[in-house]
Amino acid sequence: MTLDFTEYVRARRADIDTALAAVLPAPPECPAVVAEAMRYSLTAGGKRLRPILCLASAEAVGGDPALAMPAACALELIHTYSLIHDDLPAMDDDTMRRGRPTLHVIAGEGMAILAGDGLLTEAFALMAREPATADSAIVARKLRAIGAVAAAAGACGMVGGQALDLAATRPGQADRPPSLDANALRVMHAKKTGALIRAAAAAGAIMGGGDDRVVADIDAAAAELGLAFQIVDDILDVEGASAALGKTAGKDAAAGKPTYPALYGVEAARRMAADCLDRAGEIVRAAGLAESRLMDIGRWIVHRSD
Amino acid sequence: MTLDFTEYVRARRADIDTALAAVLPAPPECPAVVAEAMRYSLTAGGKRLRPILCLASAEAVGGDPALAMPAACALELIHTYSLIHDDLPAMDDDTMRRGRPTLHVIAGEGMAILAGDGLLTEAFALMAREPATADSAIVARKLRAIGAVAAAAGACGMVGGQALDLAATRPGQADRPPSLDANALRVMHAKKTGALIRAAAAAGAIMGGGDDRVVADIDAAAAELGLAFQIVDDILDVEGASAALGKTAGKDAAAGKPTYPALYGVEAARRMAADCLDRAGEIVRAAGLAESRLMDIGRWIVHRSD
Repeated sequence: MTLDFTEYVRARRADIDTALAAVLPAPPECPAVVAEAMRYSLTAGGKRLRPILCLASAEAVGGDPALAMPAACALELIHTYSLIHDDLPAMDDDTMRRGRPTLHVIAGEGMAILAGDGLLTEAFALMAREPATADSAIVARKLRAIGAVAAAAGACGMVGGQALDLAATRPGQADRPPSLDANALRVMHAKKTGALIRAAAAAGAIMGGGDDRVVADIDAAAAELGLAFQIVDDILDVEGASAALGKTAGKDAAAGKPTYPALYGVEAARRMAADCLDRAGEIVRAAGLAESRLMDIGRWIVHRSD
Repeated sequence: MTLDFTEYVRARRADIDTALAAVLPAPPECPAVVAEAMRYSLTAGGKRLRPILCLASAEAVGGDPALAMPAACALELIHTYSLIHDDLPAMDDDTMRRGRPTLHVIAGEGMAILAGDGLLTEAFALMAREPATADSAIVARKLRAIGAVAAAAGACGMVGGQALDLAATRPGQADRPPSLDANALRVMHAKKTGALIRAAAAAGAIMGGGDDRVVADIDAAAAELGLAFQIVDDILDVEGASAALGKTAGKDAAAGKPTYPALYGVEAARRMAADCLDRAGEIVRAAGLAESRLMDIGRWIVHRSD
């Protein structure tokens, strides 16, 4: 990352963390036991990629990023809930995440399930509530953004991708070939990881007041970035960057999960991620958004180490 | 129930079941494995109390119930998700529900968690999507209804109530006094059961075009009905109507869960439910809604056997 972009990310992340702290349900309205569980996972030190992409998309279409901040926070709430549920013993059974014990280890499985449910629900409560306005144009944007985010997070999107992943995983069978072919792997990741990244970009563009054309362009570019994100995730897992990932490296392969490096080899996978970035760049340039932060975020996704 | 009201409920339930079948995510967009899991629980034969209350509230304020049908379906999706997650081994650990094996018994815990997540998310996608309109007055109602439902279902509402319940439950300690006092029990149930019943009524009144005053009145009446619902639920559990409930009777007491009959005795609990119904009736009459179906639904709640 350039120094300038590093500073941009740092500033955005601080804004987002402040906003998240303000919107998280708290006592006395919210029972402390579940409020604390939600806060534990939300403050575990994520990259805040999705909210940063959301805000950058609002700016890219010439909008006020403040209008997109509730949606940006909602996307991080949803991402956090998905990690909590994915880490459960009945799913990926991960005991460490970002260098800390996962929530179910700390609070128990039942409370972890509830904290995830609470984060997911709060995302929609937040997007409905804020920004508080009677301006019918903004009200219409809010409703459209909620629809985009809910469709992406649901059973046709992220939840569906996790279901395909769960159904394809055969624990302890790493010596067998992956159970998904290349096309099925792409579909699974487009849902599991790609849908929410696309929704982050689209919701930002919608809240920023982008017209249908530019929202569609940003969505298409984000689809490429989402695929790149997943390919790089798989490579990082294989390469054993376990300190940076804060979780057990090589775990996907050990669980018999299909990955891009397993299907194509690490070098070809790396080229695929670079190709995604190129295609995203073409879309962004054609849409007249080359001056935005969108491609800085794309390069960050591809060149990250965690 | 009067014959007339019995017929009303039957007709509404048929409409709701038809609408639910049409909105449930399905292949090819939604992976079959999670679509089938969601459908299994949604078609398990619930009373459809919440959606019926939602539609009746829309009618009570003089609105078109068709405008409230998506919200009505969303409330049933949320209610169904809450049952799936509550039944999980990490929560209430129920293996039977409405006379059938619970979803995690059939599909595994991981898929049950995902099906619940998918139902919850689809509720908001549906309310954002339908009724499809650019009419700014209806758009504003939709956003307000989403806000009311999300606030009620989240960590300050239903999820928070379940968290309080989970934290208070001490398995196998039925010989000890209940771990919640009367006030804490009331707070827990107001969140766990009451909030979604109130939201069903409020969302119906909002979608029906009710003004702030009548929405508040209907919400207040529904709060009384929600408490009555829970008291009767506890009584039915104690009285061992396990055939009608389709689950193991006496289970709450055996789990050391605080209940109204345990705190007050069955007769006093029965009177409390009747008092709730009386207070709801006063609110409904004062609001000029005595001719609506709301009190028929109240009597159904109190006199039901499942």
